Amino acid sequence: MFGDVIEIKGDDFFSIPKGYNIPDDVDYVHITTNNTIYGAEYHDDPDINVPLVADMSSDIFSRKVDVSKYALIYGGAQKNLAPSGVTFVIIRNDILGKVDHKIPTMLNYQTHIDKNSMFNTPPVIPVFTALQTLKWVKANGGVEGMFKRNSEKANALYTEIERNKLFKGTVAKEDRSLMNVCFVMNEEYKDLETEFLEIATSKGMVGIKGHRSVGGFRASLYNALGIESVNALIDVMKEFESKH
Amino acid sequence: MFGDVIEIKGDDFFSIPKGYNIPDDVDYVHITTNNTIYGAEYHDDPDINVPLVADMSSDIFSRKVDVSKYALIYGGAQKNLAPSGVTFVIIRNDILGKVDHKIPTMLNYQTHIDKNSMFNTPPVIPVFTALQTLKWVKANGGVEGMFKRNSEKANALYTEIERNKLFKGTVAKEDRSLMNVCFVMNEEYKDLETEFLEIATSKGMVGIKGHRSVGGFRASLYNALGIESVNALIDVMKEFESKH
Repeated sequence: MFGDVIEIKGDDFFSIPKGYNIPDDVDYVHITTNNTIYGAEYHDDPDINVPLVADMSSDIFSRKVDVSKYALIYGGAQKNLAPSGVTFVIIRNDILGKVDHKIPTMLNYQTHIDKNSMFNTPPVIPVFTALQTLKWVKANGGVEGMFKRNSEKANALYTEIERNKLFKGTVAKEDRSLMNVCFVMNEEYKDLETEFLEIATSKGMVGIKGHRSVGGFRASLYNALGIESVNALIDVMKEFESKH
Repeated sequence: MFGDVIEIKGDDFFSIPKGYNIPDDVDYVHITTNNTIYGAEYHDDPDINVPLVADMSSDIFSRKVDVSKYALIYGGAQKNLAPSGVTFVIIRNDILGKVDHKIPTMLNYQTHIDKNSMFNTPPVIPVFTALQTLKWVKANGGVEGMFKRNSEKANALYTEIERNKLFKGTVAKEDRSLMNVCFVMNEEYKDLETEFLEIATSKGMVGIKGHRSVGGFRASLYNALGIESVNALIDVMKEFESKH
C-alpha cells in the first residue's frame, strides 16, 4: 500500500454496498463495476463527491457509461474487448500530474499519453483484435445494442434460475450481474451439483463451475456470447429438473 | 531515476565498450546484449565483478548463453520468441528481496514467482506462441542450431556488404550483430539510397530502411528468418551494383 486505505463493504459481496458516506478528504474512491466471482454489478454510474476510479475490466462496452462521472476508467481487455495482453485507460486530464512521489516511468499515465500509447512495443495482436471487436460492437448497435443483447441473455437465465426448483440465485436481485450469472443448487439438491456439472460439460458447456471461493455455478455471458448458448444452458437445467 | 547511474559508453554505439572498470560498490551493471538500432552485439557473456543484469529482448535464443553469469536476464518476447505482449525473466534467487523501498506489487518479481506467473491474467496468445516457437527452436538444433543458422545468414550478408562497391558496414567487425545487420551506401553513392530502398520494397523487402537516428539500411535476421530471404537481399544488392 502506498497510502491509507478505507474499505467500504457490506457483510458480504452478494450485493453492491449502498448508503455509505465518502469523507471529503479522501483522494479518490475506487470501485470495480462488476464482480466476476460473486456476480454483483453496478447498473448505474454512482454519484461520488470525490474523484471516482473504476476497474471496468469485466463489463466495459456492456452498457452505456457516463464517462464524465469518472476520473479514471481502466481495465484488462480480456472480457469484452480483446484477448488478454492489452489494457485500456480512459483518463480525465485534470487528474494527471498529482503524484508527489517518484513513480516508475511505465506506471505514469503521462508517459503513455506523451507517446500515443507507443512508449513500449504495443501488443499488436490484442490491439488489432480490439479494433475488430469494436467494429463488431458498432455494427451491432453499439453499447446500447450490447446492453439489449446482454439484458435478454441474463434475464432469460435468471428467470429460469428462479423458476427451476433445483436452483437459486445468490445475488441481491437489483445488483445481479449481466456478465456473470452466479447460482447454486437449493439446499435439498446440493448433492446433485457434480452430476449437473458433468451433464453440462458433456454438452460442451465448460467453465460453468463457480469460483472456488464461492462454489456453485457461474455462467459468464460476455458481449460475444449469443443467446443460443444461454438457451442451451437453460434447456440442460430444465432437463435436469425433469430427471430429478 | 530511482538511484545514481553511471553510464559506460564509448564515443558512439558502433562498437561494444571495452576495457572499462566497474567500481566494486555499484549495485549492478546493466547491459543490452544486442543494439537493434546500431547493430552492435555482445558475442560472449562478459565477466563482471558485480551482479549483471541484461536486456536480451532482441537476441535471446539466438546463441548459447551462460546464464550463470547473469543475476537477471529479461526481455520482451517480440523478436525471437513470440508476438509482442509477453515478457520473459530469468532471475537468480539470491538477488531477490534486496529492494529497501516500497515498490508496486506488479513490479516486484517475487509477486510473479509466488503466483507461478499467473498473478495477472496471462496473455494467452503470446504465451502459446512462445511454446510453439520454443518447440521449433528445439526441433532445429536448439540455441546451437539457431546460432549456426544465424551465423550463416549474417556472414553471407556482411560478406556481400564488404564485397559490394556501393555499400559499407557501420559497426566494428568484432561486434557486428547477428540479428540486425546495419549498413550504408558508400559516400560517393549516397544519392542512390532512395532508389535502392524502392527496388528492395518492390521485391517485397520491407522495413530495411535504417532507424531514423542512424539512416542507411538495417536487415533484421531474427531466428525465424530463413537464409533464402537473406540471399534474396544479396541478389538485389548485386543487381543494383551491376546497374550502377
